[in-house]
Amino acid sequence: MKPTPNSPELAPLLALGAHPDDIEFGCGGIITRETRAGRKAHFVVCSHGEAGTYGTPRQRIGEAKKSAVLLGATIEFLELDGDAHLEVRAAHAIKLAEIVRRVRPGVVLAPSLVENQHPDHSRLGKLVRDAARLACYGGLKELRRRPPHKIGQLFFYAVTPEAEPSDISPVLIDVSAREIMKTWTAAMEAHASQTSSRNYVELQLTRARLLGTRAGVEYAIALFPNEPLVFASLAQAGRGARQF
Amino acid sequence: MKPTPNSPELAPLLALGAHPDDIEFGCGGIITRETRAGRKAHFVVCSHGEAGTYGTPRQRIGEAKKSAVLLGATIEFLELDGDAHLEVRAAHAIKLAEIVRRVRPGVVLAPSLVENQHPDHSRLGKLVRDAARLACYGGLKELRRRPPHKIGQLFFYAVTPEAEPSDISPVLIDVSAREIMKTWTAAMEAHASQTSSRNYVELQLTRARLLGTRAGVEYAIALFPNEPLVFASLAQAGRGARQF
Amino acid sequence: MKPTPNSPELAPLLALGAHPDDIEFGCGGIITRETRAGRKAHFVVCSHGEAGTYGTPRQRIGEAKKSAVLLGATIEFLELDGDAHLEVRAAHAIKLAEIVRRVRPGVVLAPSLVENQHPDHSRLGKLVRDAARLACYGGLKELRRRPPHKIGQLFFYAVTPEAEPSDISPVLIDVSAREIMKTWTAAMEAHASQTSSRNYVELQLTRARLLGTRAGVEYAIALFPNEPLVFASLAQAGRGARQF
Amino acid sequence: MKPTPNSPELAPLLALGAHPDDIEFGCGGIITRETRAGRKAHFVVCSHGEAGTYGTPRQRIGEAKKSAVLLGATIEFLELDGDAHLEVRAAHAIKLAEIVRRVRPGVVLAPSLVENQHPDHSRLGKLVRDAARLACYGGLKELRRRPPHKIGQLFFYAVTPEAEPSDISPVLIDVSAREIMKTWTAAMEAHASQTSSRNYVELQLTRARLLGTRAGVEYAIALFPNEPLVFASLAQAGRGARQF
Amino acid sequence: MKPTPNSPELAPLLALGAHPDDIEFGCGGIITRETRAGRKAHFVVCSHGEAGTYGTPRQRIGEAKKSAVLLGATIEFLELDGDAHLEVRAAHAIKLAEIVRRVRPGVVLAPSLVENQHPDHSRLGKLVRDAARLACYGGLKELRRRPPHKIGQLFFYAVTPEAEPSDISPVLIDVSAREIMKTWTAAMEAHASQTSSRNYVELQLTRARLLGTRAGVEYAIALFPNEPLVFASLAQAGRGARQF
Amino acid sequence: MKPTPNSPELAPLLALGAHPDDIEFGCGGIITRETRAGRKAHFVVCSHGEAGTYGTPRQRIGEAKKSAVLLGATIEFLELDGDAHLEVRAAHAIKLAEIVRRVRPGVVLAPSLVENQHPDHSRLGKLVRDAARLACYGGLKELRRRPPHKIGQLFFYAVTPEAEPSDISPVLIDVSAREIMKTWTAAMEAHASQTSSRNYVELQLTRARLLGTRAGVEYAIALFPNEPLVFASLAQAGRGARQF
Repeated sequence: MKPTPNSPELAPLLALGAHPDDIEFGCGGIITRETRAGRKAHFVVCSHGEAGTYGTPRQRIGEAKKSAVLLGATIEFLELDGDAHLEVRAAHAIKLAEIVRRVRPGVVLAPSLVENQHPDHSRLGKLVRDAARLACYGGLKELRRRPPHKIGQLFFYAVTPEAEPSDISPVLIDVSAREIMKTWTAAMEAHASQTSSRNYVELQLTRARLLGTRAGVEYAIALFPNEPLVFASLAQAGRGARQF
Repeated sequence: MKPTPNSPELAPLLALGAHPDDIEFGCGGIITRETRAGRKAHFVVCSHGEAGTYGTPRQRIGEAKKSAVLLGATIEFLELDGDAHLEVRAAHAIKLAEIVRRVRPGVVLAPSLVENQHPDHSRLGKLVRDAARLACYGGLKELRRRPPHKIGQLFFYAVTPEAEPSDISPVLIDVSAREIMKTWTAAMEAHASQTSSRNYVELQLTRARLLGTRAGVEYAIALFPNEPLVFASLAQAGRGARQF
Repeated sequence: MKPTPNSPELAPLLALGAHPDDIEFGCGGIITRETRAGRKAHFVVCSHGEAGTYGTPRQRIGEAKKSAVLLGATIEFLELDGDAHLEVRAAHAIKLAEIVRRVRPGVVLAPSLVENQHPDHSRLGKLVRDAARLACYGGLKELRRRPPHKIGQLFFYAVTPEAEPSDISPVLIDVSAREIMKTWTAAMEAHASQTSSRNYVELQLTRARLLGTRAGVEYAIALFPNEPLVFASLAQAGRGARQF
Repeated sequence: MKPTPNSPELAPLLALGAHPDDIEFGCGGIITRETRAGRKAHFVVCSHGEAGTYGTPRQRIGEAKKSAVLLGATIEFLELDGDAHLEVRAAHAIKLAEIVRRVRPGVVLAPSLVENQHPDHSRLGKLVRDAARLACYGGLKELRRRPPHKIGQLFFYAVTPEAEPSDISPVLIDVSAREIMKTWTAAMEAHASQTSSRNYVELQLTRARLLGTRAGVEYAIALFPNEPLVFASLAQAGRGARQF
Repeated sequence: MKPTPNSPELAPLLALGAHPDDIEFGCGGIITRETRAGRKAHFVVCSHGEAGTYGTPRQRIGEAKKSAVLLGATIEFLELDGDAHLEVRAAHAIKLAEIVRRVRPGVVLAPSLVENQHPDHSRLGKLVRDAARLACYGGLKELRRRPPHKIGQLFFYAVTPEAEPSDISPVLIDVSAREIMKTWTAAMEAHASQTSSRNYVELQLTRARLLGTRAGVEYAIALFPNEPLVFASLAQAGRGARQF
Repeated sequence: MKPTPNSPELAPLLALGAHPDDIEFGCGGIITRETRAGRKAHFVVCSHGEAGTYGTPRQRIGEAKKSAVLLGATIEFLELDGDAHLEVRAAHAIKLAEIVRRVRPGVVLAPSLVENQHPDHSRLGKLVRDAARLACYGGLKELRRRPPHKIGQLFFYAVTPEAEPSDISPVLIDVSAREIMKTWTAAMEAHASQTSSRNYVELQLTRARLLGTRAGVEYAIALFPNEPLVFASLAQAGRGARQF
């Protein structure tokens, strides 16, 4: 049951965020869980957070890099339209598809498609969903330098409770292990410009505790699969969350 | 990744049907997949199909027993209100909870809750969902002879395409292996009184082929989990169904 | 396009109501439209309205009979549990299935399944939906005196705006013709015990006007089909409601 | 019931596809059904399929033309943003509205709005829906060369099972006639670059067979109306799909 | 803005629970908020919790009485079918309607209608919704001893996170005041048989904290209105929850 | 309960429309209700209606100005992409956010997000929703001339019945007072170029009458809140709409 680092289950993880702290707040506990198990993780951050109320772009880039190190991930910044300016353009999806072809991930994590949140979040989610398709199409001229790549699964994460989709059944990932929670918390706190004056870290820990109660563990994080999950047998299909 | 017969993943499977052929038509391929892997399976059939247009109760009981043998499952018949007469009564849920405590399953399969199908189907689904809870409650006098039992997961199956819920994300189980499809087909055909004059077997194979195309395999069957699935890591969370 | 009285399109219409005025208020305009075209219509009323605030059972039975005559329909009263006491029992569905086998309708009209209305309404809707199935099952002992019957389509009507389902696409029936509106209004006003002190008639005319505006006609009534509609060609599939 | 070629029911059909094979795979059986009944059909294809893995633009244009001939339709290619590059722009909707004014169709067919499919599909669906409105607005300068036109109905088709909307009740069109199925299959196979190595044709036939089973016929194709359907009477409202 | 005890806004509150601790865990903070403002509150508890794993009926009755005193409410126990045996019967709805006529509440609180929770919860919710209607009907013989009563609003509360409806927009009630949180916590802890070994109190406080974060206050509890809210002006329509 | 002009409940109202008559037709009765109570109201109209079938831009600007005076509101016209050309661009949302910072409203009213209506309507709704967020973000360079502003609540209005969202619970505002209805009607009729040949005024009055019947008043208008409503107590949470 424990896959070794070279097994296909450990194909790289690619996580994308619209702002420097989105990945960490939305699913940082899962990232550290996976990198500790030997999976490579790569972050793509699509703005410098320059429209936010707190922190300069330079500070925020530094915080994101520090946090990625804590979570065991590599990181790159991608220029699209800038913070609070992101639009759904085919050219952006193609740029993201090029990254998919380069990183060749098994799992992709993107912000959820719920529209009633920061507009950059759902737009990036849509762009990533499109990118995962475009990465497979053999005829795209912009991408011809790299062979097509088919990912294993696209999961959406929710940066805030409001971003949780109500039309996709979630899967819950157990992040209760002490070292996971410690690393996740540290990664969130590394975004000092965002957390000093606000209760963002507490918000995420409260969410994870509530989902953990539901899942019968101490802490859990929800992901929302873009496609039905395929299993070879029921033995692989997990257990149900409810504690009767 | 291949659990041995004594592993906790192989706790018994309990499948319930309102009529003698519901389990086979709805998810027979999954049953044979599981029993071949060493899991025990037990069927509870809640009528003799006496209201159906074809077949006598005696014939139908015989067909169900023969089919259960083919699928590697044990079978029992439970008297509730009779075919086409099933009602949602607390006493029924308690009877079913007693079976849950006796069989002590890891996985429970029940007909879906979609109401626009044979009324016995969705009512049995509701009763089983309630039974799975009642099996855990320590104070129920009717059940005090057996200790409480908490199941691992309840999945719903759809006897017909119309019975597929639109508000639960399905999981797809690969049943493409030649011996699985052969056994499943034989188990459906064992219900000779139901299949001689109608295209029920073709209907199920067509559905499985369509889902298989979606899942990137030859044949697949959908199950609909009653609760979010809990995983220890992304390596266990399966892969997505879509063939881009 | 104009079916003659003996054509299959003019198989009898069966409309069911929980109270003496439900059919008239919910879809009376459609009834008169159909009987004027030569279709037979039969009403089954499942209480005497004895729990209502206004009118005695005797008055209400008289009003319903008078209204049925105006609409060109025959009428019978069926004893189930009584007004405000209706429950979803298998025995009721079987009684209703017997009526389906006797009347052998092409079209069945029943109150909608929306639960947040008078509880008798949605319960009767569920019972009728089940009855339409049971009428087809050959093995039901209670029904063996009459051969099985398969209806053409079950439509739900909404007695009040709140009863309109939000999960079924409606079809809109044009009832603008002067004589239709006049007869429908008279049939509603025949329920004098219910309409003298309240604005029920105005409510229905307002609804029909609003739907008519949407449909590009003067007045329309919505029905909600229980199953997808089947057409031999697009020429039969109607036109869209929106007036751009 | 059989409309002659000049009847209003036979106003031209306009079908739009994002790629050269979308119309054929999504609803080709309906096209041949309609043209055989005397209706004119016109295809607008909005890319050359140049981003696809198989086939050159030149091949694909040839295949589409050949297929259109088989289905009895005329065809034109419209330059928008190119394959896998389509965006929702007002200028595109206006171009499409100009085609609506030129063709003056009774029925319009467009790919469904479900977003989790090839991004060009749902975007074209949105553009067509907008175009159907804009075609009616008298003040649009770009369109002033042609008088406004109001279509009869817009239906969405689903290129793949995943593209079927879950929030619109479908209508099912019977395409069982031998010559219809034969022509439809030939039209799909005309897209030889797409079908030689993949099971696209089988996928569509399997879908049509499953829907046919539901509709009580051999093969059926689902369409999803953008607006409630308006009927003059119940005799026109079709029959229900379920085979009890 | 502060209504005095005799104002119409302070008509009595009636809260119903299926088990002795449901009201407290689901919405106890709101109860103490209202009774502190001068509103009368009355609890109806529909079982003794005798099917639960912990606590005897005698203990649980005592705990419920103690807790009601803490919250400033009166309490009565109503015999329906017993714990884990509740069914949706017309006779139960009529019994509850009689209580509505006796208490004559402005606001009624009942467990939510979500079915995937303890079956008694959603069934009581349905019965209360029906009871609120039946209380208005003038002709019900069983109720003729008391005049009809029309409540102001029915709100549903969620005993657990899973019981929160996804199809009703919630309203959030601010319960942050120190004395409210203290009393609510004490009322939950008064159910000592249920809380000693489990984290039920923490679960509710975590939920309230998460909703509070959303509402821009420290703690909040969600209620789900059964009907659209009616306001005389926008000044009364509250403010939005999201903290941008 | 009656707020004086200077109370925080009477912070300015900002209403936005895509065309010169959208605000009046969608929620004009609420505007006059609020300005009569002493609240300031400001309209932003994002085109001159130049794509419409009737009226010149000059006429329509004049009608909008006249109507705003009748409703007691100030008005400005904002150039975005022009009538029937509106797109969802980040630059537009920022322009609108600048207006939010300038007007500093308590309540914002925008057209609903339902996509199956005039495309400008839902696009403006999305832009306003985004603008309400962007107005709070401290780092946006384009907005640095004005301090951030957090609105109290965003409500959507529906210009036509089809534009009413089915996934948000509405709130109903009572507009029955004679002077309110008179002013609203006059404001709609001020758009003489739009109303002379069509039944737009009747449509809105019919809608308001139907909602009024539901709310137990003579006329009501529905608004759809973008966020859950927050209340300090149940006394403020309104009453339910249904007239049992």
